[in-house]
Amino acid sequence: MAPRVSRRGLLGGGVAAAGVAGAFATGRATADAPAAMTPAAARAASYAFRGEHQAGIVTPAQDRLHFAALDVVTDSREELVELLQAWTVAAERMTKGQAAGEIGPVEGSLDLPPDDTGEAIGLPASGLTITFGFGPGLFRDAEGRDRFGLADRQPEALQTLPHFPADNLDPTRSYGDLCIQACADDPQIAVHAVRNLVRIGFGTVSVRWSQLGFGRTSSTSTSQDTARNLFGFKDGTANVKAEEDAALADHVWVGGDDDANGAWLAGGSYLVARRLNMTIEVWDRQPLGDQENIVGRTKGTGAPLSGGEEFSEPDFAMPGRGGPIIPADAHVRIVHPDQHGGARMLRRGYNFVDGSDSLGGLNAGLFFIAYVRDPRTGFIPIQNAMAKNDALMEYLKTTGSALFAIPPGAKPGEYVGQSLFA
Amino acid sequence: MAPRVSRRGLLGGGVAAAGVAGAFATGRATADAPAAMTPAAARAASYAFRGEHQAGIVTPAQDRLHFAALDVVTDSREELVELLQAWTVAAERMTKGQAAGEIGPVEGSLDLPPDDTGEAIGLPASGLTITFGFGPGLFRDAEGRDRFGLADRQPEALQTLPHFPADNLDPTRSYGDLCIQACADDPQIAVHAVRNLVRIGFGTVSVRWSQLGFGRTSSTSTSQDTARNLFGFKDGTANVKAEEDAALADHVWVGGDDDANGAWLAGGSYLVARRLNMTIEVWDRQPLGDQENIVGRTKGTGAPLSGGEEFSEPDFAMPGRGGPIIPADAHVRIVHPDQHGGARMLRRGYNFVDGSDSLGGLNAGLFFIAYVRDPRTGFIPIQNAMAKNDALMEYLKTTGSALFAIPPGAKPGEYVGQSLFA
Repeated sequence: MAPRVSRRGLLGGGVAAAGVAGAFATGRATADAPAAMTPAAARAASYAFRGEHQAGIVTPAQDRLHFAALDVVTDSREELVELLQAWTVAAERMTKGQAAGEIGPVEGSLDLPPDDTGEAIGLPASGLTITFGFGPGLFRDAEGRDRFGLADRQPEALQTLPHFPADNLDPTRSYGDLCIQACADDPQIAVHAVRNLVRIGFGTVSVRWSQLGFGRTSSTSTSQDTARNLFGFKDGTANVKAEEDAALADHVWVGGDDDANGAWLAGGSYLVARRLNMTIEVWDRQPLGDQENIVGRTKGTGAPLSGGEEFSEPDFAMPGRGGPIIPADAHVRIVHPDQHGGARMLRRGYNFVDGSDSLGGLNAGLFFIAYVRDPRTGFIPIQNAMAKNDALMEYLKTTGSALFAIPPGAKPGEYVGQSLFA
Repeated sequence: MAPRVSRRGLLGGGVAAAGVAGAFATGRATADAPAAMTPAAARAASYAFRGEHQAGIVTPAQDRLHFAALDVVTDSREELVELLQAWTVAAERMTKGQAAGEIGPVEGSLDLPPDDTGEAIGLPASGLTITFGFGPGLFRDAEGRDRFGLADRQPEALQTLPHFPADNLDPTRSYGDLCIQACADDPQIAVHAVRNLVRIGFGTVSVRWSQLGFGRTSSTSTSQDTARNLFGFKDGTANVKAEEDAALADHVWVGGDDDANGAWLAGGSYLVARRLNMTIEVWDRQPLGDQENIVGRTKGTGAPLSGGEEFSEPDFAMPGRGGPIIPADAHVRIVHPDQHGGARMLRRGYNFVDGSDSLGGLNAGLFFIAYVRDPRTGFIPIQNAMAKNDALMEYLKTTGSALFAIPPGAKPGEYVGQSLFA
């Protein structure tokens, strides 16, 4: 048989790159976050898996996403816990740029399947974060039965999202008992992470749906420029950012007393996932002025139509021709915190293009991800207002939807989600 | 109305990046091709649209792909020519990092749709290449009727590919009258290019299918490392490379006398596209030794099982236990040029993951692209041998297929494909 190379040689890039992780050792970005990273720095970046909060929330948003929702196919609580333990080990390894398992893709016995699938050999950590979540179905099945002795720990806020006007959900792109959000600056790394976690879970979980995304549409740090969605507009200007400690505590992190059943979720969050198909071709035929009136901002700088620059506060009272200069149904007005008791979200969405639909249009849009402290106040009212009144809805069709509770970060010696089972 | 930014300010990154294009002014990579580019250099790279050959063939393979196959929906030859003229202008602009149209995404009248969709504002050229091709259906419709007065120019080699054993084609992922291959080092740039070309073609063409890809699986230059496919193996080791002038002339570029009807195609090529779904989860459960016997190479270095390193020639006669050390049905043996009269291809494939299938498996694999001088000798016999005898076929399902004639490059003052209509 031919000679074999050492894992050290194969995975050296990943190991060498781990030095960037220091500033993020708590799993939270800080004011020391690297300023707008060059692509090379982004490839070399590595974020600690363990910390007070899970990585992948306030971590400066990477450029690529592979998101998977899974159903649990075992009835055994023990198998479920063992899977979370195995996932913790593998996730911590991969976020360091290492293979998913100790043996790796090519070093093991020829008579056994490798414990890593190999497509990431030689690639650096690429800023990989892996974020796990629990859906309502993990606590109770469709008939309301307690599946794993967890029913009395189901937070009241963790329920299947209500039907919103204009929802057109595909059940094969919605819901799920568990979720894995893998973000990285190389799609091969994000895909490798999900694939290997699913491989480890064979027989315990089954993928319900998954979604690739590119081109982060929200910055999660003041060090990042605001990116553009497929409407061509800047997206996420008013996002909660990693540097806003008070806003994170108010709007993103679950508190210990938030929910009678949810003390285990303290330091965690809720992840709202919505697959928003855009009617790209119709949008592209709208006059520039109409596009700007629908959004309520200019397409160039992203400034509100009331003037200033991107981060200027909109002046909703400023008169224009025949009404306010920011129209009554403009997106920026409908979703503004002033309309919703100050509610803000930490958004972390990605553009997607999944080929074409049967009419020759792009099957494309925004895979919306938001982290909120409580979806009942932080998401549902805003989504209802948007669905009813927002001019942008004419160009959006919601084809997927899911809600997950995101447990706090795993501390040293813990597995992810341990507080739920303790 | 709020103040507007200048296009210069918005698109400055693209303009400034055009300097890298010099070495590629002929549309062909040369020995001066940038050595294994850093990600930052890849983002800044810009390749000339015009040249002897179209860019995007021997150009060092970029990391991301958006491929679209289109059907022509007009009966007018004049409209078809006008579209190719408009596409030439827009493609040349976008490969320089400019907006698709002269006015751009935000500078025009508020009363008109912009002539660029805007999601690439501020992004550099990112090594974008745009390569156009003509399918058999452009020459004759399904009933054999001459559609645009081009029937007597249909090359004999340009026919719908035959049915191969194990083909399981989805007609909505196969065929097409025209194709656009957009490659770049940023997916947002590749998507932006296809979207804007489709927008320009509204009413003349309709997208039949499109495919995103990531992680080039073949290097097209000796300056690039060999990348890995989703089987975890290096792919494309024996590829025809940009630096091999004689091999390109023999195996990739169509000659003026190759085909009685195809003199217009001289300096062009044929593009074979095949969507190969991999049964990822089954593959991942195969022992390492079985995986290596199926491929005929080691998973680590990519060396043939007969020894040496990645680029060592396989020794097909070397004995192993109970047969040759490279098994009779190993992929590397079945497709080796020695089995096919020396035939070689220039491959330019990409990994894809299109979410999940209904069984919880990844809908993933290799979007195979190969450029050949004549598919009748350069592709069909190899594919037949593979379909019949290759052990790898057990893990592959071909779900899409198409063949396009790729006209030569547009020279100054020409539009792409002009030789066909002249």
